[in-house]
Parts: sequence; structure tokens; C-alpha cells
Amino acid sequence: MEKEIIGWIYEAAEKVKSGLGDALKVDQKNGRTDLVTNVDKEVQDFIVKKIHDYDPKALILGEENGQDDTPIDKGRVFVIDPIDGTLNFVMQQENFCIMIAVYEEGVGQLGFIYDVMRDELLWGGPKVGKVYNNKEELSAPENKSLSEGLIGMNAALYRKDLFHAQEIGQTSMGIRVLGCAGLDFVAILKGTQIGYVSMLSPWDYAAGTIMMEQLGMTVIGENQQPLSFKGREFFIGATQAAMAEIQAISKANH
Amino acid sequence: MEKEIIGWIYEAAEKVKSGLGDALKVDQKNGRTDLVTNVDKEVQDFIVKKIHDYDPKALILGEENGQDDTPIDKGRVFVIDPIDGTLNFVMQQENFCIMIAVYEEGVGQLGFIYDVMRDELLWGGPKVGKVYNNKEELSAPENKSLSEGLIGMNAALYRKDLFHAQEIGQTSMGIRVLGCAGLDFVAILKGTQIGYVSMLSPWDYAAGTIMMEQLGMTVIGENQQPLSFKGREFFIGATQAAMAEIQAISKANH
Repeated sequence: MEKEIIGWIYEAAEKVKSGLGDALKVDQKNGRTDLVTNVDKEVQDFIVKKIHDYDPKALILGEENGQDDTPIDKGRVFVIDPIDGTLNFVMQQENFCIMIAVYEEGVGQLGFIYDVMRDELLWGGPKVGKVYNNKEELSAPENKSLSEGLIGMNAALYRKDLFHAQEIGQTSMGIRVLGCAGLDFVAILKGTQIGYVSMLSPWDYAAGTIMMEQLGMTVIGENQQPLSFKGREFFIGATQAAMAEIQAISKANH
Repeated sequence: MEKEIIGWIYEAAEKVKSGLGDALKVDQKNGRTDLVTNVDKEVQDFIVKKIHDYDPKALILGEENGQDDTPIDKGRVFVIDPIDGTLNFVMQQENFCIMIAVYEEGVGQLGFIYDVMRDELLWGGPKVGKVYNNKEELSAPENKSLSEGLIGMNAALYRKDLFHAQEIGQTSMGIRVLGCAGLDFVAILKGTQIGYVSMLSPWDYAAGTIMMEQLGMTVIGENQQPLSFKGREFFIGATQAAMAEIQAISKANH
């Protein structure tokens, strides 16, 4: 299955890149800075068609085209973000990703994050027992503490100091705001960030979560609960050591 | 002169890259997250030697090795940041730059920002009448308004809401925190960010400022004053349209 998915991603990336020169059709979703383009929709449709040709029974959980409400826990579910970091895509023509995850009966089997313009594909999970950066197997990042690493942050969460985001940031070596969840996961998987604190939807965190867990790192949702895979929610992903410290900060402030 | 400087930068970059595999010697400067490594110092010494071989009378204004106090306004001054984004360099082994600027009698003539790991050299200024991205001439970015673009921010400034940083960020399409001034300037020069609001030292802003002005954009220091080139100071660089809006926000809140 992974070979097919990688093929779809590379083919989708060609569509995205060839679309960069054209005039994008940009629409607002939930406000001025929440954008969707014709490319998001076309790429999702393209991937969905490939999935249905490959496995007609597969279910889709995806950001665009009204497929955002599929339960994660029954059957084989493909979780799709055709363009993660749409604002970067529109404004920068770089720093965006294509993301796909495969869940079977609620268990994450494979995750794929493709940084299109840097040609960097991170993929893996329980189905293959490994995580790769392109063709190179990734080793598990060092289990660094919060004070030893950089941490990715959602800007609004940090500004409003929700969920003790500022104390978490102050305890770390520094925050980074990249505007693309996929890039935060790529940094965590490569060991160049120790975590990521954000508000995310299932298609933002599905692929990254599968690969983080494969490499021995942990993720959690609001109130120390597992991620719900239902709508947008608070998200923490981190090394085990950093996660323990983040949870201690949350409890101390409760 | 520009050919020589580009040669030094590429040679320095090789030293930096070959040093990445070795154990870095990391020291703290003004606190836990303000780091300097043996590589910063060695690269500054290397560039300074090249400068003095080329022009024995040239003056140096640089971050390391006690050369941080040279006045900008007399003679030919080379402004050097051997590794801009030292925290990224240490933590990520990417997302850092080598920066050099040349001032003559206080007038910026040439700026150079080299994103070492992406092999992207932005350079130019009045001396050559242009700005280049590697060998390609850059055209002036569109004069976008604040609400039309992404803006780079210093995380502490944003968290503490100094200089109305949060309102500036809220008026824009979104903030980005990259942890490396050079990368913010690269984004502005390529037109993928409309500005940058930060606290910077002369070696952080010298090269970027020269190139921004060459492409018709503007920079300013605290209290609407020109940059002082003396110590760390408030910095805004932006398109002309975004700068006008940022100044209006500052005045409205005064």
C-alpha cells in the first residue's frame, strides 16, 4: 500500500507545482486568514479518486469537500490534508505539505508528510515498523527535555497564553511559528524541535502522530485525554521528557 | 569587491558545514538561550582575516570577539554576523545564515545573506544597483499592505506585546517566528513576507537593510528614528504600504 500512496503523493505534488504559476482561486473559509484554493480541492479530489480506485471500501476523512466528519474507528480510513499550510502556499509558494494517514479500525498504520518544495518525504508507521526521510531510515530522536529544545507553537495560542503556552515556551529554548503543522512534525521527527503545541484538526495531526509514536514520542489532546479525531482541538506532541514537563506545567497551574 | 566577498562566504560556509559533524563547543552569552559556539568565533576570525588581507584599513563591526562597538559612519566598515541564528545552528543544524554588509562613510553599499544549508545567497545593494538570489536578479516585491501578507516577529516582543506587536500581527495575515533575522530578510526580499518586527543588533540588520532599500522597501528604528547602529534596538522593516500601516498603529496607540 505504501508504494501506491507515495506514487499518489508525488503525482499530486506535480499538480501542485504546475498550479503555482497559474492564478490561484482563493476563497475564505472561517475568516480572512483561513483560506482554501482551487488547488486544495483539486488535490483532495485527485487523491480521493486514487484511493477509491485502489480500495473502493475505504473511507475518507479530509479537510475539503465536506469529508471532515468521518469517524476514525471503523474500517480503513484515509486521513487527507491536500495542502497543509494553505496560507504559506498562497503567500510564499513554499513551506506547505501534502499529508496522508491510514488508520485501520482506529489504529494508525501509516503516515506521510511531503514538503513539496524541499522534496522531503517523511513516511512510516507500524505497518512498516520504521520511519523514513525520503529513502533514509530515521532513528528515534534523543529524548530531550523541554529546556533543551525548540518548540513549535500556534501563534494565537501563544499570544492569548492558552493552556500555559507562554510558560511552556519560556521553559524551552525558544518557540518557532511556521504556519504549517506538517513542518513542525517534520522538525520533531528529525529531532530539530522537541515538540509542538497547537490547535489542530485530525488531518493536521494524523500523519505526524503515527510517525511520532513510531519513534517513541507522545501526543495528547485537551485535559490529558487522547486526541478525539473530532473537529479542531488542543494538541501537544513532544518527546517523552518534554511531554512530562509540559504536563507538570499544566498541573501546577490548574 | 563583491566577487571576493562571495568567495569568502562560500569558503566560510564549507568550514561551517564541516564543523556540523563535530562536537560543538557551546557557551552562553547573556543567558540560557543566547548561545555562541566555537564555529561563530572561528568563522568571524576567518572572515576578518580575509577582509584585512583585502583592505588593511577596513574596520570591522561584528557580533563576536569584542568587535561590536565600531562606529558605522567613518571609513569602510564591514559588518559581520558569522552565524545568524546560532540557536537554530546548534539545535537544528539548519535555518541559519552568514551575513556580511559593507558601509562606506555610513552609506550601505553591499549586503550578503547566505542561507548555508539551502545554498541560497541573496546579495546586492547600491554598489551593483541590483539584488540577486544566487545568479538570478530579484525584482522589487509587490508593495503589499499589512493585511495582505505574513510578517516575521521576534517571539518575546510578540509575547509581551511591545511596540504594538500583537495588533500589527493581528492586522497582517499571520506572524512567523523563524529564529534567524537573515531568514526573515530573505523572505522579505523574495516577497514571501511583507515585513519583520524585532529587536536587532547592527550585524543582524545591516545586510538585509541594504538590500531591502535597494528594492524600494523601508526600515526604521525606535520612535520613528533611523537605525542607530549602536547596540540592540527595536527594528521594523517592511514594504512601504505595510510600513505606513504599522506607523499608523503605533501613532493611534501612542
